[in-house]
Amino acid sequence: ATTFRASEHQHIRYNPLQDEWVLVSAHRMKRPWQGQVEPPLATTVPRHDPHNPLCPGATRANGEVNPDYEGTFLFDNDFPALQPDAPSPGPSDHPLFQAEAARGVCKVMCFHPWSDVTLPLMSVPEIRAVVDAWASVTEELGAQYPWVQIFENKGAMMGCSNPHPHCQVWASSFLPDVAQREERCQRAYQSQHGEPLLVEYGRQELLRKERLVLTSEHWLVLVPFWAVWPFQTLLLPRRHVRRLPELTPAERDDLSSIMKKLLTKYDNLFETSFPYSMGWHGAPTGSEAGANWDHWQLHAHYYPPLLRSATVRKFMVGYEMLAQAQRDLTPEQAAERLRALPEVHYRLGQK
Amino acid sequence: ATTFRASEHQHIRYNPLQDEWVLVSAHRMKRPWQGQVEPPLATTVPRHDPHNPLCPGATRANGEVNPDYEGTFLFDNDFPALQPDAPSPGPSDHPLFQAEAARGVCKVMCFHPWSDVTLPLMSVPEIRAVVDAWASVTEELGAQYPWVQIFENKGAMMGCSNPHPHCQVWASSFLPDVAQREERCQRAYQSQHGEPLLVEYGRQELLRKERLVLTSEHWLVLVPFWAVWPFQTLLLPRRHVRRLPELTPAERDDLSSIMKKLLTKYDNLFETSFPYSMGWHGAPTGSEAGANWDHWQLHAHYYPPLLRSATVRKFMVGYEMLAQAQRDLTPEQAAERLRALPEVHYRLGQK
Ligand SMILES: O=P(O)(O)O[C@H]1O[C@H](CO)[C@@H](O)[C@H](O)[C@H]1O
Ligand SMILES: O=P(O)(O)O[C@H]1O[C@H](CO)[C@@H](O)[C@H](O)[C@H]1O
Repeated sequence: ATTFRASEHQHIRYNPLQDEWVLVSAHRMKRPWQGQVEPPLATTVPRHDPHNPLCPGATRANGEVNPDYEGTFLFDNDFPALQPDAPSPGPSDHPLFQAEAARGVCKVMCFHPWSDVTLPLMSVPEIRAVVDAWASVTEELGAQYPWVQIFENKGAMMGCSNPHPHCQVWASSFLPDVAQREERCQRAYQSQHGEPLLVEYGRQELLRKERLVLTSEHWLVLVPFWAVWPFQTLLLPRRHVRRLPELTPAERDDLSSIMKKLLTKYDNLFETSFPYSMGWHGAPTGSEAGANWDHWQLHAHYYPPLLRSATVRKFMVGYEMLAQAQRDLTPEQAAERLRALPEVHYRLGQK
Repeated sequence: ATTFRASEHQHIRYNPLQDEWVLVSAHRMKRPWQGQVEPPLATTVPRHDPHNPLCPGATRANGEVNPDYEGTFLFDNDFPALQPDAPSPGPSDHPLFQAEAARGVCKVMCFHPWSDVTLPLMSVPEIRAVVDAWASVTEELGAQYPWVQIFENKGAMMGCSNPHPHCQVWASSFLPDVAQREERCQRAYQSQHGEPLLVEYGRQELLRKERLVLTSEHWLVLVPFWAVWPFQTLLLPRRHVRRLPELTPAERDDLSSIMKKLLTKYDNLFETSFPYSMGWHGAPTGSEAGANWDHWQLHAHYYPPLLRSATVRKFMVGYEMLAQAQRDLTPEQAAERLRALPEVHYRLGQK
């Protein structure tokens, strides 16, 4: 019998955080590509465009004028998917037709006054200001809402409609689907094994090493064993931390620096401004914030779509939508490639 | 208090087939779009290209020469994600690191010898040949494998790497994730309510009418109450049918005709060859095929990404990947728009 080698033999892997499986078929990297090639990214974004509603001093869709902000800037999304008040759909008349009320707020957070920078091109203190703003908005909206979803869509490929460096914050009166899954999985793990799932997972990955991308005093970045996207990563604190606001100043500085390194590696991989969606998950907030959420470990997910080059991406389509996620290179191969990349940004190194 | 109106007031809806929620925020259709515009679709596909590995008479990557086929043509995928033999990863040493063996086959099925047609441009008898080929391949591969996933990725936007009309068939030794969810939900519904979930669902939609797109003697097409993609549809037989091979000749003819109508409406919506991923779900097969699967109802899902025009799509990104699916127009609005569209293809009507 042939010996199993993950890089050669298809297999399925389990995601214990979200209770899902992924099909890993590394041998498929050999397949030729004749499909859609993404349009090349707009490389010349002007530093300031008075017509861009995210720029300092610009007028937004609702007529408000942005301040001349110099660091981060948080404001209400002019086209929010969630609003603070909406009537309730009322009771369902049939188990197959269930609807419920949804309330919330959607905010936009600019990272920097300039449109032509991205997080990896910002300084560590500038990134630190973003980390602090994430912690504050979690605290502020978390006072009222049980879930505060911070997420960044970077790049047109990820549906981002504005090149200015920014993220979004959607707070909701309900625990969204993915949060519910992570809640269920982490709670069950804690009750079975007596410690938080992701604390033990981080410890194991530090021992096993093959999926580590970066480590620092307080943080680790790894390609999870169950990663779905080609260069997906998980960012974890070493200490057990439930939510962003709990991070100490030293942990925040260290986070800013490891984020800069990770995002620099990402940009260096295909020498492009690497597209991704990323987001933070921490323990639920709102009126139940005081309950026992010790099974939660704070973490960020990075989901980048590029597979082979700056213009050839992985598509999560037919089989993936109808049956199960499928990946080509193994998580260990992805980690190895990311580890090997320089920590100096290719656009700065060229000087 | 304001009266709830689904088309104006955000709310969440439950998908009882896959145990998931979607956030519906119809008011967000007003939002301007400055993001990625998809490259216009290649409109001039040659009818025959000897270098296209899906064409009759062409030589494929493995050196095999395609026959001069005149109807459908089924062959092994030259770059399969699943192969019939692969060693097993062996037992897991830790609950957070679980991998299992995956075996299977991947096939490609050409619908027609010509590269410049699509299903809605084919005749009903030509589509009927595709339906028969789907039933046969389910039977053939289902003899050995517990799950046979037939799916079509149509259009470059859906990661389809070849414009020749075709679908894929991936059969696996395991029940994929989505199949597991549908199995769990349908089984639970049957045991609670004494009848198959989708049989009751189809009956309810026939009564409620507002989400129906097309009905025929044996089939219905509707935008499900819990649809995630803007113009997502569900295709259901009226009779309780567990798997494709059980369909009678009359049901197959009628299926071919309703598919042609649905796909014509799709193309007419934005006057473009409408991209989508679609796939069939039926009761599990393989060695357990003889068990009681009466809770399963055969169905096909259509997941099309376009939202506003032939070049502006819905992105399932940040919030959707990290938290929960979100849609803009309501399923009822989508059904109404689809219902109103002609059943004659815009490219044929112009004559
Ligand atoms: O097999 P194809 O058409 O080359 O590939 C396409 O469909 C597959 C199955 O959904 C996906 O895994 C690929 O990402 C996609 O590009
Ligand atoms: O709010 P934006 O950036 O205009 O929109 C983007 O992010 C949203 C949240 O992930 C998605 O719902 C949209 O489909 C996407 O285009």
